[in-house]
Amino acid sequence: MAMMNAQQYRDSLARRKPMKVYLDGKRLDNPLEHPYIRTSMNSVALTYELAHDPEHAELMTAKSALTGETINRFCHLHQNADDLVKKVRMQRLLGQRCGTCFQRCVGLDALNAMFATTFDMDRKLGTRYHARFRKFALAMEKNDWIVDGAMTDVKGDRGKRAAEQQDKDLYLRVVERRSDGVVIRGAKAHQTGSVNSHMVLVMPTASLKTDEKDYAIACALAADAQGITYIYGRQSCDERKLGGGEASDIDAGSAAYGGQEALMVFDDVFVPEDMIFMNGETEFAGQLVDQFASYHRQSYGGCKVGNGDVAIGAAASIAEYNGVAKASHIKDKIVEMNHLNETLYACGIACSANGAKLPAGNFFVDALLANVCKQNVTRLPYEIARILQDIAGGLMVTLPSAKDWLNPQTGAILKKYLAGADGMSTYERMRMLRLIENLTMGRGAVAYLTESMHGAGSPQAQRVLINRLANLEEKKVYAKSLALNGSLETVEAAIRAGLEKIHTPDA
Amino acid sequence: MAMMNAQQYRDSLARRKPMKVYLDGKRLDNPLEHPYIRTSMNSVALTYELAHDPEHAELMTAKSALTGETINRFCHLHQNADDLVKKVRMQRLLGQRCGTCFQRCVGLDALNAMFATTFDMDRKLGTRYHARFRKFALAMEKNDWIVDGAMTDVKGDRGKRAAEQQDKDLYLRVVERRSDGVVIRGAKAHQTGSVNSHMVLVMPTASLKTDEKDYAIACALAADAQGITYIYGRQSCDERKLGGGEASDIDAGSAAYGGQEALMVFDDVFVPEDMIFMNGETEFAGQLVDQFASYHRQSYGGCKVGNGDVAIGAAASIAEYNGVAKASHIKDKIVEMNHLNETLYACGIACSANGAKLPAGNFFVDALLANVCKQNVTRLPYEIARILQDIAGGLMVTLPSAKDWLNPQTGAILKKYLAGADGMSTYERMRMLRLIENLTMGRGAVAYLTESMHGAGSPQAQRVLINRLANLEEKKVYAKSLALNGSLETVEAAIRAGLEKIHTPDA
Amino acid sequence: MAMMNAQQYRDSLARRKPMKVYLDGKRLDNPLEHPYIRTSMNSVALTYELAHDPEHAELMTAKSALTGETINRFCHLHQNADDLVKKVRMQRLLGQRCGTCFQRCVGLDALNAMFATTFDMDRKLGTRYHARFRKFALAMEKNDWIVDGAMTDVKGDRGKRAAEQQDKDLYLRVVERRSDGVVIRGAKAHQTGSVNSHMVLVMPTASLKTDEKDYAIACALAADAQGITYIYGRQSCDERKLGGGEASDIDAGSAAYGGQEALMVFDDVFVPEDMIFMNGETEFAGQLVDQFASYHRQSYGGCKVGNGDVAIGAAASIAEYNGVAKASHIKDKIVEMNHLNETLYACGIACSANGAKLPAGNFFVDALLANVCKQNVTRLPYEIARILQDIAGGLMVTLPSAKDWLNPQTGAILKKYLAGADGMSTYERMRMLRLIENLTMGRGAVAYLTESMHGAGSPQAQRVLINRLANLEEKKVYAKSLALNGSLETVEAAIRAGLEKIHTPDA
Amino acid sequence: MAMMNAQQYRDSLARRKPMKVYLDGKRLDNPLEHPYIRTSMNSVALTYELAHDPEHAELMTAKSALTGETINRFCHLHQNADDLVKKVRMQRLLGQRCGTCFQRCVGLDALNAMFATTFDMDRKLGTRYHARFRKFALAMEKNDWIVDGAMTDVKGDRGKRAAEQQDKDLYLRVVERRSDGVVIRGAKAHQTGSVNSHMVLVMPTASLKTDEKDYAIACALAADAQGITYIYGRQSCDERKLGGGEASDIDAGSAAYGGQEALMVFDDVFVPEDMIFMNGETEFAGQLVDQFASYHRQSYGGCKVGNGDVAIGAAASIAEYNGVAKASHIKDKIVEMNHLNETLYACGIACSANGAKLPAGNFFVDALLANVCKQNVTRLPYEIARILQDIAGGLMVTLPSAKDWLNPQTGAILKKYLAGADGMSTYERMRMLRLIENLTMGRGAVAYLTESMHGAGSPQAQRVLINRLANLEEKKVYAKSLALNGSLETVEAAIRAGLEKIHTPDA
Repeated sequence: MAMMNAQQYRDSLARRKPMKVYLDGKRLDNPLEHPYIRTSMNSVALTYELAHDPEHAELMTAKSALTGETINRFCHLHQNADDLVKKVRMQRLLGQRCGTCFQRCVGLDALNAMFATTFDMDRKLGTRYHARFRKFALAMEKNDWIVDGAMTDVKGDRGKRAAEQQDKDLYLRVVERRSDGVVIRGAKAHQTGSVNSHMVLVMPTASLKTDEKDYAIACALAADAQGITYIYGRQSCDERKLGGGEASDIDAGSAAYGGQEALMVFDDVFVPEDMIFMNGETEFAGQLVDQFASYHRQSYGGCKVGNGDVAIGAAASIAEYNGVAKASHIKDKIVEMNHLNETLYACGIACSANGAKLPAGNFFVDALLANVCKQNVTRLPYEIARILQDIAGGLMVTLPSAKDWLNPQTGAILKKYLAGADGMSTYERMRMLRLIENLTMGRGAVAYLTESMHGAGSPQAQRVLINRLANLEEKKVYAKSLALNGSLETVEAAIRAGLEKIHTPDA
Repeated sequence: MAMMNAQQYRDSLARRKPMKVYLDGKRLDNPLEHPYIRTSMNSVALTYELAHDPEHAELMTAKSALTGETINRFCHLHQNADDLVKKVRMQRLLGQRCGTCFQRCVGLDALNAMFATTFDMDRKLGTRYHARFRKFALAMEKNDWIVDGAMTDVKGDRGKRAAEQQDKDLYLRVVERRSDGVVIRGAKAHQTGSVNSHMVLVMPTASLKTDEKDYAIACALAADAQGITYIYGRQSCDERKLGGGEASDIDAGSAAYGGQEALMVFDDVFVPEDMIFMNGETEFAGQLVDQFASYHRQSYGGCKVGNGDVAIGAAASIAEYNGVAKASHIKDKIVEMNHLNETLYACGIACSANGAKLPAGNFFVDALLANVCKQNVTRLPYEIARILQDIAGGLMVTLPSAKDWLNPQTGAILKKYLAGADGMSTYERMRMLRLIENLTMGRGAVAYLTESMHGAGSPQAQRVLINRLANLEEKKVYAKSLALNGSLETVEAAIRAGLEKIHTPDA
Repeated sequence: MAMMNAQQYRDSLARRKPMKVYLDGKRLDNPLEHPYIRTSMNSVALTYELAHDPEHAELMTAKSALTGETINRFCHLHQNADDLVKKVRMQRLLGQRCGTCFQRCVGLDALNAMFATTFDMDRKLGTRYHARFRKFALAMEKNDWIVDGAMTDVKGDRGKRAAEQQDKDLYLRVVERRSDGVVIRGAKAHQTGSVNSHMVLVMPTASLKTDEKDYAIACALAADAQGITYIYGRQSCDERKLGGGEASDIDAGSAAYGGQEALMVFDDVFVPEDMIFMNGETEFAGQLVDQFASYHRQSYGGCKVGNGDVAIGAAASIAEYNGVAKASHIKDKIVEMNHLNETLYACGIACSANGAKLPAGNFFVDALLANVCKQNVTRLPYEIARILQDIAGGLMVTLPSAKDWLNPQTGAILKKYLAGADGMSTYERMRMLRLIENLTMGRGAVAYLTESMHGAGSPQAQRVLINRLANLEEKKVYAKSLALNGSLETVEAAIRAGLEKIHTPDA
Repeated sequence: MAMMNAQQYRDSLARRKPMKVYLDGKRLDNPLEHPYIRTSMNSVALTYELAHDPEHAELMTAKSALTGETINRFCHLHQNADDLVKKVRMQRLLGQRCGTCFQRCVGLDALNAMFATTFDMDRKLGTRYHARFRKFALAMEKNDWIVDGAMTDVKGDRGKRAAEQQDKDLYLRVVERRSDGVVIRGAKAHQTGSVNSHMVLVMPTASLKTDEKDYAIACALAADAQGITYIYGRQSCDERKLGGGEASDIDAGSAAYGGQEALMVFDDVFVPEDMIFMNGETEFAGQLVDQFASYHRQSYGGCKVGNGDVAIGAAASIAEYNGVAKASHIKDKIVEMNHLNETLYACGIACSANGAKLPAGNFFVDALLANVCKQNVTRLPYEIARILQDIAGGLMVTLPSAKDWLNPQTGAILKKYLAGADGMSTYERMRMLRLIENLTMGRGAVAYLTESMHGAGSPQAQRVLINRLANLEEKKVYAKSLALNGSLETVEAAIRAGLEKIHTPDA
């Protein structure tokens, strides 16, 4: 059986070679022991742990398309729309359990996109990447490994493309071509879960022009490969995790779980030939990016909905602690939170259910709806968080430190004066407020809000795709036909004749 | 072959007995010839016409669950989630073609709800309604008939329930019980497509208490039954349809199509026993209403999206006529229209794809998502319409009459001064503006806006159901577990133990 | 005493020479008797009538800056911020009374803008327009006349400027220069209240380049001048006004009042020298447009708030008729309507209170806030109207005709079945629903919604000005100083040194 | 000259008796030196410093109504609408300079409210509080002291009022009455700036019933009075301030400034008679609360607008650093930020300009508009912050620590790879991102977002007042008159007859 459990996952990471991880100005001797990293690893570990829970097996596991074995769904090549729907439901489940980013989707989305693009590349250009990538995908499944999908370059001057940058390294590129592989240099930003991964799948960050062949590189590396440096990103309120003990646990808001991003620097790293899946095929960079992005925009219709469930649960809980759960305006606000959260979920489900088979054999989401999904994710969680702060009350930002609670003198005062509704625990009330702070301003907000904004592409990226996929020409036919009293036959003919049918399911 | 075409449909309506239809203060001798009614019938006729178009057969037809025959999907008992998805896609298709309400969904939704509720009633109460209703449903299929789903009572004082009204008839009720049937009295408001229907399926309008047995009546009647009076509702700008000829066509905005609502009065109408499907079973009134409402709230995620496609097409078209199609703010507004419209569609698809089998054997939508869908329908089309008015420009409300256009003197002036972008037709520009007026203020707006608000239940009705279905208890478990650093085992156990799993697919 | 009353106003219009007014394909013999025009004149007449009501004298009248006499405020050159505030309050008052557009603001705004621009022109260019215009303004005051501010050209291809149009007449221009004046040709669109006016003040529609001297024409004409043709604009539901009698009154929603727009065509009209206030000074066209627009954008923070008060009153009334006035969600929605409406009012008041003296001596609004005001007007009334439709219930679009009410047979049925809350009048309920239809879809919606969108410039026009006036450079100083821990002295110095202080009141 | 400068203010605080201040579990020996407190004091110090800047004298100072001397405006009893407008502009100015809460408004608002309420109390009840309070106000002016307005009780079970709580101390109350004064017990939550204040003005937190006399206590105390304990509130990212040095400065986002809230516990504190301004007059508690709240809701239309200016400046700056300042969607988003921010400002200005004289002689804001102002403040800053995060890019939450920047090894990598637009400073880019993090998630967000939500009353509190002040009865008259075609005379009469005119300025 290929599936690791949580402990096996932790052990497997510990077996990596020493990695160069910097955090807060120092290189870490034992990265996995650092409280920021340890808690972020806890989130990832859930993806292993719940896969062994029979209650969740349907969502957490799948039958491999490559071997027929039962595998962790995070390694699965989607075979049908139901697989896509289950992916979203799995993500919601995990988002509910950890209340933050569990980091493993990016690899899953990269696997499926790379699988499809290598197939198309080979078919069109006669290259031989697909079989090679299939082998890679199979290994990931067998090992139940986590792949960091390394796409986002640091980009330098955003007004210029890769080849125009003053410093050519601002987009990751091939700096040397050898008979047995290539040497790459550059940096990938915002690498979610990278320090918690086994492998890295490097991909280009944008469409490329023909003079940008050196940037058209996709390849895999071990996370502990020679030449990779990780510089860990700070998160709002990260220091709450330091110190340890109950005070730290309380003030962190969510003691056990966290997310992770790092800047990943590739300082002339060698990649052997059999780990290269694109090398100079500039014309396919755009497709790869769009496919990855669409899969990943679908993902947000699952994980962020799970986080939203936590936010809603926190609202309902604090309303009880405060003694206002029955106020009509509170109930109505919670309805609104649910309405917004389920709207996101509907988008995640719809772009999955409307999925279609790719030439490579795996299944692709409805790209228009996946972009619509992500566009909503850049808005609705912010409104849900705003309502959550409304329901929480001002104490969420004026609450004294947990150490004041644990100090007997001030603790007695706080116990007396921070009492909520009769019969409710003041201690629990305090901890719930800290969770709400976490979700709307702290480490959780990094995942629930800012990552919702920029992960899988910033809002404008989705608008560009919505514009491209919305099939305005066909819609103009509808309007003109009605305005000019055209016959039904004419409309049908106009639609059939030559109108590009991008949005397949409705064409 | 059971499926009528458009002409057969028209003929079949003409064969009905003379109906008592009042409009604008007079009883109509030949209702089907009145311009309001004729154009509303054109919308319905599309549901017959497109069913014969091979291009649309997959959406417009289905294989009957009762006979295995190919039938019009509007008569179909949904057998799986794919049927539900296709229903929504069919509705979008029709909404694109007529730009207004095609009136036939209510019957389809009533059929499926009644089918399910009669089954449950029989099972629980030992009644024998289901077989009787199955026969009725089969007849509808075979005849390819339209059923008006008559649910909404006039309600009188909304602060009181049925039995408390001063005038007991303000909710439709049984006034006499005979050995061979019952006599009913009352009125159903907002009867969409009623004058264009063959049959009427009367249902209670709300949950009922045990002292309201007389109101717990569900039954079928011919639309031309003795004792039924129709009083036609006015629509904004309806008079534009009068007069006829080109001027009328132009100023109507959409010459061919329209919607229809009427007040339907039952003046002691006799219903034979075999047409009665609920009679006093007050405890099932609520379920019937909720099931019908959820199906119908799904519907709006299809038809209104189709209307939205027309609105978007009108925006893109008028931008071209005005010469501003390339302005970045115009393009961005059209992206926003698409984003909002596809968000509705996503909700329609999601509540369908997440559907589940009912005990009766037919398929039911995910009720939470269907209510979320409809709640969005009460908001987003208004914003789409607002943007459409923004893009249209002020001329949409200051444009002179089509008669001014047709008068040679003023026509020449208008032709000169209302010219738009070079090379564009001023005539088409004018007609497109009239379509936009129709969609945002006129007859089309009745369907696209106000009906979006109140059809299938007003916004608050959805909020009540979202509140009921959102499973707050489970969400509180997530939040409390994270806030209190509870173990995963505890969370899983808490969720499994006794938490009601209303929202099945995510439990 | 210079101030006319309502009857004197009507008489004065009747004394005009026969005007060429086309409506619905025919030239009208007696325009003022046509129901569309008569009801629009009623709205204007309120501006005369209320000026004689001592209760409203403070708002409706002012002490002339030219003569010291008491005059109608609609003829007043604003002398201080309080005048600007009172203008807004007067507009709210009138908007409450007629529930639509009372048409007289555009002249007031044109007077004040032209007064200021002619002064600046003379000062810079040595022209002699200001004294001439002062004389004109004085005559308007003395006669208590209405001036139609004729700015908006028909514009043809919006992707091109005036001089680039294929047909040069698509922007109004001078076609002949004579020793005693000029001859103009062109058309002004959307002329609010033009048929109800005594005079027309023609102005250019946009900034002009030096090769567009012929378009830099500002001048006054009598509304009945030789060569002017009016082609009346249609409004949604306008035909409800035809027929007359009670049925027409009921179905019109608002029987007495209406708005007015017409296309105004200038077919080689001669303008004598002393009525010309700009003639070729292209560099001042932009200023005139901006000043007029800012004044007019302030206006919308008054009149539309008054219309909003009617909408709110209608919501509160229909809630009573329906028996739901005490439902918490209904009350909350009415709070939201008030919140939005008062937000508009706050913008109207603020741009007035923050006004500043112009070189010409009259007072100007805070242009940034006036544009912000209008930008909100393009959004919030749409949301208020949406909520109003929510509260109204579906009957507002399915209500039978008033003729059905007046027909004894159907009338009895309607009286029985359309009853609302106990003790409420069904007749009043029906009429209130018609008012709501009027305000959200009918003639009233033309004024309350579409005119809110496009009157005084479409939304994008305000965004261009907000961008120009927002003083980003100063704001960057604040941010950089905080980010870089700059000293207070540095910030203050940076702000003082050379940063343009556009937004005077906060500099 | 009564006005202190910044240094004098700091010295004056240092002269206070040792105060009992707990923070992070320990009693502080020297509170003013703690980095959290020191930076919060810097914000307050600005109110002293800028008062001595001639450029800002008009806003920052006023002529005392009590002495005619020039005083700091924060001690001023408003004498006219212009004073109210200047208050708002002063607050915007300060908000621009510190980018957070400067804490001094609450005292100003409490002074004006208490001044008015004591007058009304004396007049109605024959008490003699006003002269006493006048003396207190005079002392504050003369000393240029800061007054903490202590209103918000901890409230316990929010479903119960003061007298119903299990623990009677959960609302501050008189526990002993002596001949020379009273002894009070209880706690005030969220005490903004309390540790930076000289005096405390205790007030009741809500309307009171006649059985709650012990809670109807208003009185002044020295901030260092015997028996007061302060427990300092945590803020998001507060620990960034610890450690000191450049790394701490950078990561704090805004090095110099901060806000402050503390829980203030009154443990049987004695208040001498001459410092008591309400003692048992339950019927005036509600008025005092409402007046204070309205003044304070006006305040937010100034300070949060200033914070918004910083947010907008940060958006414009980071867009430049990133090289996207000219992208049309970025420019449009900045326009939207300005539009929203100026909408708040308009509300602040409008409720001031519409102010009216109180019986006590000082000026009061338009309460309806002040509540509308605050209601917008609970929404629009959240949207501004959301757009700011959109423009900032994901790096704002994945940026490595400043210590990584300062470490030569990682510093070189960051310098290379975090480069932005050509010619821009990477260091400045990093610091601007930290400011944005501060404003949207960190200490600044406490002030700009959560305090905007709950300060001066949570959103529902404003809705209650909007409902009370909106004069629905008058609005119903408008609607009914139009719907029923009522004569103007009737409307005017209906409005005059007995309709309460709450919203004076528009009556």
